[in-house]
This record gives sequence, C-alpha cells and structure tokens, in this order.
Amino acid sequence: MLLDQINGPHDLKALTVAQLEQLAEEIRQFLIEKLSVTGGHLAPNLGVVELTLAMHYLFNSPEDKFIFDVGHQSYVHKIITGRKEQFDSLRKYRGLCGFIKRSESEHDVWEAGHSSTSLSAAMGMALGRDLRGGTNRVVAVIGDGALTGGMALEALNHIGHEKRNMMVILNDNEMSIAPNVGALHHYLGKIRTDRHYQKAKDELQTLLNKIPAIGGKLAKTAERFKDSLKYLLVSGILFEQFGLTYLGPVDGHDIHGLLEIMKQADSMPGPVLVHVLTVKGKGYKPAEADSHKWHGASPYKIESGQMVKAVGPPMYTKVFGDMLIQLAGEDERIVAITPAMPGGSGLMEFAEKFPNRMIDVGIAEQHAATLSAAMALEGLKPVYAVYSTFLQRAYDQVVHDICRQNLNVVFAIDRAGFVGADGETHQGVYDIAFLRHVPNLVIMMPKDENELRRMMKTAFVYDKGPIAVRYPRINGIGVPLDADPAPIPIGTWESLREGDAFEILALGPMIEVAEQAADLLKREGINAGVVNARFIKPLDEGMLLSFAESGKRLLVLEEGSQQGGFGSSVLEFYSLRGIYDVPVKIIGVPDVFVEHGSIQQQREEVGLTAEHVAAELRSMLPRRIKRVTGQT
Amino acid sequence: MLLDQINGPHDLKALTVAQLEQLAEEIRQFLIEKLSVTGGHLAPNLGVVELTLAMHYLFNSPEDKFIFDVGHQSYVHKIITGRKEQFDSLRKYRGLCGFIKRSESEHDVWEAGHSSTSLSAAMGMALGRDLRGGTNRVVAVIGDGALTGGMALEALNHIGHEKRNMMVILNDNEMSIAPNVGALHHYLGKIRTDRHYQKAKDELQTLLNKIPAIGGKLAKTAERFKDSLKYLLVSGILFEQFGLTYLGPVDGHDIHGLLEIMKQADSMPGPVLVHVLTVKGKGYKPAEADSHKWHGASPYKIESGQMVKAVGPPMYTKVFGDMLIQLAGEDERIVAITPAMPGGSGLMEFAEKFPNRMIDVGIAEQHAATLSAAMALEGLKPVYAVYSTFLQRAYDQVVHDICRQNLNVVFAIDRAGFVGADGETHQGVYDIAFLRHVPNLVIMMPKDENELRRMMKTAFVYDKGPIAVRYPRINGIGVPLDADPAPIPIGTWESLREGDAFEILALGPMIEVAEQAADLLKREGINAGVVNARFIKPLDEGMLLSFAESGKRLLVLEEGSQQGGFGSSVLEFYSLRGIYDVPVKIIGVPDVFVEHGSIQQQREEVGLTAEHVAAELRSMLPRRIKRVTGQT
Repeated sequence: MLLDQINGPHDLKALTVAQLEQLAEEIRQFLIEKLSVTGGHLAPNLGVVELTLAMHYLFNSPEDKFIFDVGHQSYVHKIITGRKEQFDSLRKYRGLCGFIKRSESEHDVWEAGHSSTSLSAAMGMALGRDLRGGTNRVVAVIGDGALTGGMALEALNHIGHEKRNMMVILNDNEMSIAPNVGALHHYLGKIRTDRHYQKAKDELQTLLNKIPAIGGKLAKTAERFKDSLKYLLVSGILFEQFGLTYLGPVDGHDIHGLLEIMKQADSMPGPVLVHVLTVKGKGYKPAEADSHKWHGASPYKIESGQMVKAVGPPMYTKVFGDMLIQLAGEDERIVAITPAMPGGSGLMEFAEKFPNRMIDVGIAEQHAATLSAAMALEGLKPVYAVYSTFLQRAYDQVVHDICRQNLNVVFAIDRAGFVGADGETHQGVYDIAFLRHVPNLVIMMPKDENELRRMMKTAFVYDKGPIAVRYPRINGIGVPLDADPAPIPIGTWESLREGDAFEILALGPMIEVAEQAADLLKREGINAGVVNARFIKPLDEGMLLSFAESGKRLLVLEEGSQQGGFGSSVLEFYSLRGIYDVPVKIIGVPDVFVEHGSIQQQREEVGLTAEHVAAELRSMLPRRIKRVTGQT
Repeated sequence: MLLDQINGPHDLKALTVAQLEQLAEEIRQFLIEKLSVTGGHLAPNLGVVELTLAMHYLFNSPEDKFIFDVGHQSYVHKIITGRKEQFDSLRKYRGLCGFIKRSESEHDVWEAGHSSTSLSAAMGMALGRDLRGGTNRVVAVIGDGALTGGMALEALNHIGHEKRNMMVILNDNEMSIAPNVGALHHYLGKIRTDRHYQKAKDELQTLLNKIPAIGGKLAKTAERFKDSLKYLLVSGILFEQFGLTYLGPVDGHDIHGLLEIMKQADSMPGPVLVHVLTVKGKGYKPAEADSHKWHGASPYKIESGQMVKAVGPPMYTKVFGDMLIQLAGEDERIVAITPAMPGGSGLMEFAEKFPNRMIDVGIAEQHAATLSAAMALEGLKPVYAVYSTFLQRAYDQVVHDICRQNLNVVFAIDRAGFVGADGETHQGVYDIAFLRHVPNLVIMMPKDENELRRMMKTAFVYDKGPIAVRYPRINGIGVPLDADPAPIPIGTWESLREGDAFEILALGPMIEVAEQAADLLKREGINAGVVNARFIKPLDEGMLLSFAESGKRLLVLEEGSQQGGFGSSVLEFYSLRGIYDVPVKIIGVPDVFVEHGSIQQQREEVGLTAEHVAAELRSMLPRRIKRVTGQT
C-alpha cells in the first residue's frame, strides 16, 4: 500500500504520476470503507481525490495556503496531512471534524461549514501576503454551486479588481447538493459542451498568434477583433470579464492533465481560475449514480450501497414536506422557496407535485428571502424553507425586506437546535436570538410532529405579517397526525402538567426533558409544572401574569443560545411590567460554540438533561431566596 | 409651468417629447430649490429625471411595477405621482419619506433603504404575476454600485435562469456613493468607451444579418462564429452570458433616445437589461463637480453651492478617522476595510495617508467581513468600518467566519442608535441584539469622543479575539482629547455619580439623558447613581454583584432594541446566578420600527428622555415592590 507511506505532503513529492494514480485509487477505497461505518460526505470527497493530490504534489502546504470552500470535501486533504488514523472517529464527539479545523493541523488554515466564503478568504490572504511581502501561493477550491452565493460573487468582483496572484480552482461537478440552477450553471454547461471543439480552437489560436501587431489608427479595432476571436477561443470569457485569467476546462480525474494546467496557472501573474470538471462520487457506482443522495451519507453496505436507515417516527422535515403538499392542494397561493436544499428541506415530493410552485434559487439565501417578500406582495403565500444556520445569511433581508414591510412570508426553519455531527458551523442555536427582536414577526416551535402540522396550518391562515415555525433535526415522537389540523390561537401556550411552586417553560424537544425532570422531582415530593411554550413570540402574557400572581418560580428550557433567547424574553416581560419578584432561571446553550458529536452528547455538554434540570430546580427551592454569587 | 399640471402619471401621457424635456428642466429646478432648504439625496435624483419621466410616460404605474433600488433616487417619481406639495416636509418627522414608502402612494410598491434588493424584488413580482396570469410590466432601476452587492448578483443568476419578462434598468453613473471599485466597474467603463464605435458596429450588424443561415455539418461552427461576432457587436456580453438581453448603452439625459430603447426593450421577450448612462448631479454644477459630496446633501445656498455646516464638536465619525490615522502610524499591521463608504465612515484622510492599507470592496458587506477575517489570520489588524444597519448584511460572516474562528478583527460600528432623517431602514438599533449572543466578541460603546479614542486603543492592543466599538451618528460633546489615550481594562464600567437606592446603567449618548434624569430626581431628594456601562459585553460582573449586595434597583438606558439588548443581558446576569431580588427596568427601543425625523424626535417617541426616565425611576420607588400588570 502506497497510502501507508504517506504521513504528510512531503511524502507525495517523490512519487511518479503513475504512483499518484495508484494512491488515488487507494484513497478512494479507504474513503469508501471508512465512511461505510461512520457516514460522512462521501460523494464530494470521491470527486476531489486527484485534484487534492495534485495540489499537494505541486504546491507546499502549509506555506502555500489551501482554502476549501465549505470544507466537507477536505477528507483527502486530511488523509494526506497525517490524519488517516483518525477516520474511525470522523464526525464523532471529540473525533475528527468533518470540516477544516485549524486545531487539528497546521495544514488547515481556513475553517468553514457555510458555503461561498473561500474566495473572500483567499483574497484576504493574498492581500495579507502582499502587505507583509510574502511569496506564498494562495489556492481556493470552490464548487460551481458555491460560486453562485452572493458573497463569492462579491469576492470575484474584488479579486478581478485587485489582480493579486492567486489561484481559484473551480470544482465543477454540476451540483451543489441538489442539481444546480441558475444562469451561471447554464453558462458552465455550455463550456462543458464546448470542450469538444478544443482542437479546432487550438488551431485558431496558432493562427491568431501569427497575426502581426497592427499599429496606427487601426490598432484599437484590431484589438477589438482579437478580443472577439478570443471569445471563440476561450471558453470562460465571463471569468475573463471579471478580471481573472481563465484556464480549462480540464478533466479532474486525469492527474497528468491536472498537473499540467496547474503548473501553467502557477506561472501566470494575477488571479487565475482553473476550471476542473469532476464527477461527484467518482469510483463508487452507487454514489456516481445518485450523488445528491450520497452528498452526506449515512453508514452503508459497501456491496449494495444500501444505507442504514434509522427506524422510528418520521423526521420533522418529512412531516413538514407532507403537510405542505396537503396545504398547497387546498390553497393555490402557496409557493415554496429553497436555497439549493430541496432534499434537505423535505421538498422533493412537493417539487414533483407542484413544479410551478417550487422555486429553487441555488445557494442564495439572501435573494431567496427578498424574493419571498416580493411574492407575498403579489398576494401569494410564500414559504421560505431554510435551515436555522443558513437563515443567518439572510438576517438583513428578514429585518429590512420582510418584517419591516410586514409581509405574509412563512419561514419554515429546519435544523433548529443542535444538529449533531455537522457541529459548530451548523448548530441552529441562534435563530431565536437573532429573530425575536425583529418587529412584526411571530415565532413558533411545536412540541411534536402533529403540532408542527397545526402550526403550518396556523401560519398559512395567519395574514397579519411574517410568521416562522422552527423545528429540530430529529424524528418526531410518534403521535397520531390529525387529518385536518386545527390552527392554534397566536400567543397561547399549553400547560401539560400542573405544578405547585415551579413551572418549567420548555420549547420543542426540551419538553420531553422537562417531563423527565418533573418525574424525577415528583419522587422527592416536588410538583413541577410543565408548559409547552409553543409561541416564542408573542409570549402567552396571560399565563405569565398568572404565574406571577400565584408566586410561581420559573425555569426556562431551550436548546438555543441563552444569551438573548427565549428565556431572556420572559425576563424582559416581567421587567417591563415592573414585576420584580418572579424568580426565572434559564438553561440553554451557554456563550460558546458547541462542537460535533451526537445531539445527545451536545445536550449533555451544556446541561440540557433531566438530571441537571432537576438539580437546578432544587437549587431554586428555598422560600427565602438564597443569593448565590460568582456562580455561572 | 408644466409641472403645475402634473398631478399623476396620466398627466404625462399627452405631452410631446419637447414638453417632457421642458418638464425635466422644471423638475430639476424644483429639486434644487426644495432640497436647498430640507437637504436630501440631490445628486442621485438629478441623475434620473429623464429616466423617471420616460418610465412614467411609456408604462403604466401602478399596474406596471416600478422598483427603485435603495429608493433614494425616487424623488422624481414622487413628484410625478402627486406628492410635490409635500417636499417641504421631506425627511422630516411625519413628513415625506426620503425613500419609497408604500403608505404614501399606490405607486410605491417596494420599500428599501439598503442596497441591491431590487432585482430580487423584481424577480419575485414577475414570478407572482406569471403565477396569477397577469400581464403587467416589472421594471427595476438599479445603480452600477448596487449591482455588485452579492444579493443582486444572486438575483441576476436567477433572473437569467427563469427568463421571465422583466426589465432591468442599469443606472450607470460610475458611482455608488463613493466612486466605484471592482471588476464589474472596469467592465462597465469599457462599455462606456466602446460606444464611440457604435456606428462601425451598426454596419457590421447589417452585414451579419445578410449572412444566410447555414445548415448541415457547419451549422454549429457557424453559430459559434456568429456568437463571436456578437461579442464584437454587443457591448454587454457579460449580461448576455447571465441570460439577459442587453440593450445600450444609451444617454440617460436624452429623452428621445431613452424612449426608443425602452420601447425596444419592452417589445422583447424575457429579461432585458437596458444600460443607461447618467450623470449624478446633472444640471446643478456644484453637484456635477462633486457628486460624492452631493449624494446626500445638507441644506445649501443655491448660488454658491455652499452647504450649511453644523457647528460644534467633531462627529464621532471624524474622531474615529483621526484616531485611526494616529494608530496606523504607530502600528503597520492596521488596515481599514470599507464596503463602499470611505466618506461616511470618516476614512477619506486615512485613504490618502495609507493608500495600501485602505481596502474599499464596493457594496459588499459580506465579503468585507470575511476578508477581514482572513487578513487577521495573516497577522494583520483589520478594522472593518461599517454602519450598524449595514452590518446586518454580514451577520452570518460575523458569527461563522470571524467569531467562531475567534480572529482579531476590530469592528468600528458607526451610526449606532437612531440615525434621524434616513429613518427606519437605517436605524442602528439592532446591533447589540444581533451581536451580543455571538461567542468570543467584546462590544464597547464610549461615553464621549475621548473615550472613543481610548476604546480604539483598547481594540488594537487587545489580541484575544474580535472586538467591536459602536458609536452614534452625532457630534461629540466637546471634551479634550488625550494625545496618547490609555486603553480601558476589558469589562470595566465607570461610576459617574453615586446613588443611594438607584443606579442608572447607560450607554453612550444615553449617559447625558441619565444625568439629566438624575438631576431632576435630586430636586426631589432622590439620589440616583449613573454608570457608564461602556462594556456591553462582557459585563462588569463585580459592579453588578455589588449592586445586588447593596440592594440597589437598576434602570438600564439604551438607544437600541430593548428586546434582547443590553438591559436584557443584565437581567440574564442575575438570573443565571440565582439572584432574584434585584429590580431591573429597561428603557430602550420598543418592538416597532421607528420612522424618520430628528434623532431627538425619535428619542421622544420611545421615551428616551430625562422626564420619562425620571418618571420610570419614581415608579420603582416603593420599598414593597408594587405589581403593575398589563402595562407595557
């Protein structure tokens, strides 16, 4: 095994191209085997085996900076840079991160998880290098999907302006996660087709080089004419217009070709874009056949390609998708908008049933939000389906375009709370904190999958402004589903269990934790009530006032930032009314980023467990309020 | 006067082109006169007089939807649509809004204030129209500066994909607010130069039309050749590659030419981009000569073009710019990054002194943030200078790229708090609420301009992660400036006045309000303390604990959202420590959007006045805490 001898990029340098090809094959087998046990981003990594080898073969990491957009395609890079032994712990608690992680290796220089940041990072590193007089290379690897993200295009505009030495490798596999949409995608498709004319082009280029320079009056016209012919010759004229030199396209699985073109790019001044055509899932038939499904794979059987399916009630995502189909059948104003996540958001079936009412804008969270606003103005009922973590990209559009204009946009916020193996870049723990201060917005979270259906009904009958429903990345709890779910009056909570001195106000999956804590305390003779605080905004003011009247102590439980979150809004409620004698304690996510692991491990790490909740409640027990200082 | 007869767009329809030209002249005079008294966005509006007339002449608002990007160039539109009598109240409290406002007129269909939203809005309205089977036009007007904003490029990518009927008018004046930067800008400049070759191009086009269609084997090659010649003929091939039909460029002050090209565009299917060349400030010499200065004008003398200067101590913006120059002279790692606001952010002199360390990325808030992150990784000390309201666009980049990686980026957040005449789209009242829950970030606000200097020093010596200083859009208070300001220990507040039972915790300009309230109460024998709560995060824990020990009641005063704001973090502080007996009241901006007016009027509207603060403090007086219910 060649792979056994590779403990760092330096071990690559002495290999022949034939050996690199063999190594590529070994790495593929390594990935297919390891990920069959752990799961992970199989298809993206199988697509970049040769590309990553070529980069490490030609260039010198970590002096040269490699920046991987998103970073889920960095497994090959991790294998080469001394981390192959850690792949059994991939994406597990305290194990190898599924993205770039600076604390893991000096070869990891830029962390991400969200898309489209690599060009900005590369530009910053090139500017920094030039300011300090450095000579290192800066190489960004970005997918064709990520390229359509607004910030990547902002960066491209700046890169073409600055003209610094840097290399942008466009990893074009015709996919973001779902098949790509957008004009740029069509444009790249045209280039793919065009490459069959490469030979004719080469001949024309030779001819063109023979044309002598023309001076005098005709010079400008001649220049324009040459420019014009360039359009015939150079496929990537769009990138040239953006100010980059375009090279390619090249077959991303031909190491020889890759080395040639990357050497050529390296010899050119200014920013160069190398267009590399790769096949997502390359070398593993099931993944090649359905790279969408194999973008992020669960553990699977290698022979059959059968993924291990979790058993249990349907995911909230699936319940959302099904209910949306039902509602859309009743109300033709309903349209769904997704930023490149039709599968992850549970909209595949909806897209088949209502193709005209399904709008996938590509990786473009900002545009998706403002598009929704305009569609609401047209009298439609747009539902913007998005992950909590990706909605962060559209914060300004939520404030400025949707809520300020008070438009009837429905937000379906998936992956709210901890997300497990994707880790800190993907945690959905900030949406309450960044949404609840925005005027006009209603925010809900269901206790179970049937309540999700009721909340969707609520959202679509509501017509006074924007309304959001957030739900977790887990299975429902298996309750029966109402065929025709009744809407829920806005701002009403539900008391699930009567308490004496205590009430636990809990959101979504935290209700189960609250019930367990209440059970623990009951054995000690303490009766804690449990409230399904299903409206995060507006609060159930009547219930909060009655708690104050009856001298209750409250504990708020939320799988979200406890800084500015739901619990904090309960504190504000009493403060603003001059009610100063209601003890309120909050257990949420403290002021740190929580790394990858299982959702259960993440909850344990921050104390969102029945045992901890019970302990906190006990600490609130004494009638004469005890002052505890210095304790966090 | 023709203008006297124009009470709505229908009154335009009967005019001749010559009359339209006369009307344009009258509107220019109207604008120059009215704005000399009120101030306002003079230069942008003088640039679009003919364009706006042509739109209303040819098309039928409000059935046809006109979408103005940002909306500060909508004055001519307002004049035509029956609002000319209201211009004396422009940008004043309860007066005519300086941007598009749906409540003002049925002709105002899309509100903005932030840049680059118009293409998303237009796309949404076109999709909505097609879903409901409508036939109206959708026309977006976007500047060349706004076009580089990421979300506009996201929208362009979607527009080219969808191919719906719509018109994008590119109002190309070579400026956003400052002169434009970026590759797209250079590209547009090339087109401007090219138009002198229009005649030659027309002849080539005629020739090209005569080439017979070629069939058989050669068809594809012939097609490519024609495409290639098209590159010679059509200037805006970049837009064609994005999937739009490009027309232009046309002189934006030639009504005849505008009408011709817009008619042509209107007759074409799919999305058409009309490239209009305008002169910012057209027809008023001082504004033409310095359109940057005249983008947003203060009241001025028409003859001399002299703007009325406010007297008083320097603006915080100016103090920031001066101090940055001083610090940059001492530390060569300091670089400044601005998203197209070098003037507004006080960086013009810095740019002259340190051209290599001044990076203007154009309208690209997201890219600017992530670029800063990468530069920090390179060992530089980037300061991202941005308005509070525009930082909303970079929320995800702050969380995901800067704070999650814990990088030494300095945020200089200008226009924090109320901003006055720009109104609700520009209020800087959310940054505390959207930043304070982000781990690793330090947030400061100075009590005066000298403390701003100290905080900048603090920020640049701090090396443990990201740090932000926010300051208001007002003058300083005239304190002397330390030549070599001392840094402030992180997380320390300052007691400015001793109190007995009360402490007012105030931020920035609210300290003055707190002092006045304390003066009022002193006359009644009540001693309220005043604290300069200069660290919004981390809090001064020692001081908060000592307040609790001594049984103080606290009132928090902040010119920012009271939902999830600074006051709310004080509530959390006690709650998390199990301290339930410290009464805390918050006066901040309630859960509504606050419209345009003077900053003082905006403060009065929400109760940020000495009288109201004193009254609230009195309400907290009784030793036995009074419970007031149902009061907001």
